[in-house]
Amino acid sequence: MTISDENLCVVLVATRNPLNIGAAARAMSNFGSSRLRLVTPFGPALERAQSAVGAASVLARAEEFASVADAVADCTLVVGTGSASRRNPAIPVVELPEAAVQVREHVAGNPAYSRVALVFGSEKRGLSNTELNFCQWILRIPTSAENDSMNLGQAVAVCLYAIACTNKPDAARAAKARPEAHEDARAETRASGAERERLQGLLQECLELSGYLTRDTGALVQSQNRQLIQSAELSSQQVEHLLGMLRKMLWKMKKVASES
Amino acid sequence: MTISDENLCVVLVATRNPLNIGAAARAMSNFGSSRLRLVTPFGPALERAQSAVGAASVLARAEEFASVADAVADCTLVVGTGSASRRNPAIPVVELPEAAVQVREHVAGNPAYSRVALVFGSEKRGLSNTELNFCQWILRIPTSAENDSMNLGQAVAVCLYAIACTNKPDAARAAKARPEAHEDARAETRASGAERERLQGLLQECLELSGYLTRDTGALVQSQNRQLIQSAELSSQQVEHLLGMLRKMLWKMKKVASES
Repeated sequence: MTISDENLCVVLVATRNPLNIGAAARAMSNFGSSRLRLVTPFGPALERAQSAVGAASVLARAEEFASVADAVADCTLVVGTGSASRRNPAIPVVELPEAAVQVREHVAGNPAYSRVALVFGSEKRGLSNTELNFCQWILRIPTSAENDSMNLGQAVAVCLYAIACTNKPDAARAAKARPEAHEDARAETRASGAERERLQGLLQECLELSGYLTRDTGALVQSQNRQLIQSAELSSQQVEHLLGMLRKMLWKMKKVASES
Repeated sequence: MTISDENLCVVLVATRNPLNIGAAARAMSNFGSSRLRLVTPFGPALERAQSAVGAASVLARAEEFASVADAVADCTLVVGTGSASRRNPAIPVVELPEAAVQVREHVAGNPAYSRVALVFGSEKRGLSNTELNFCQWILRIPTSAENDSMNLGQAVAVCLYAIACTNKPDAARAAKARPEAHEDARAETRASGAERERLQGLLQECLELSGYLTRDTGALVQSQNRQLIQSAELSSQQVEHLLGMLRKMLWKMKKVASES
């Protein structure tokens, strides 16, 4: 199942930099999410946040709230975000790939009724313990120990991507395990055995004329070429293209041979 | 297994906004990645990119390159990034959760030797078709149809998160499920970008001497050859073998040319 726009909202608390509000809105737009809620944004942040690409419609719908409590009042699951260093022992910490699964499971339990709030704190301090008290658990993006401070817009993008795409690889794999569109395109026109043999034969002719083959190496080279042509999984068009180039080189070698 | 810092580099091509370079570096730092490569960044971009939190050490190590070819020369897998709207039908498109699995599998095949390049185009236009020709496939972040244009720093963050956090048991299961023994053998010695370029260059020389290239078709043929060489997923030994054969044909064509 996919999580619909109805089932998710992004809550930004005390965001100071208007560029970050625009960046968060752009990421939301990228992942089909439109419910942006701002809790006490810093001064003129919202008005100045209009510039990010594709963010206009999200920003136009953004709602402002006076407190975290108000912003999440209609939400069935409230997830705070933060790094491991900011710990509130009363609240469980769930790392992102698993957190995304839990968000999806929550919504799947009752899609018509569920609404998940993803709550992001201010750039400088993250969510305070008071703000975390409104959260059921903390979502942690598994960053490196050396630098666990993420840019706000990037954190929103990563969380929304993870929630949108969790479990997709399984489904994709079940359907087909390899580069899809292209494999199909190549499969339609995959070179036949006869085409590969034509390539093999012409290459052999070129090698003979050039003097590359010796009595000792002839059979080995032929076998190496056959393996190479097999493993390259050429399309009919690619075989045609290779034949064209080899024919020209053969012609050149023959032409000069006859002239000399 | 985890992907080490050695196994991954982020290549930013023609980035215009220095803030985005800083944002990309910060995201790299968040996910334990430090190899940043810049291809023709816009003017003073690098110097002005110092401000992002935690990005200083990544920026200090950043390397500048004159071309995509140079930036990926030592990479065993080159992955372009882009949206679905920018399609190059010759290159497979793999959506991110699956792409992350494939990147991990590539590295798992031979951790000591593998290096994956994640290539990001400019903010405005993404990667050009010429730049995509250096990529083996395109990684697409599954964004909504309404807004598939992601902020550069957010795209880097999402990709690195996905690669770092792709479900490990899943990847292990997938690796086990793949039957192809010869895939593993090839992974040991997969050709680098520099080796593929040597092959491309020698083939070009042969085609010029043979008269195959015309003013009208030269660029197209070059691009077709590059795609062919990418898609064939050659090993170092196969590249050596091909170089040997082409060198001999070139020698023959030259020899006769000088005699006639």
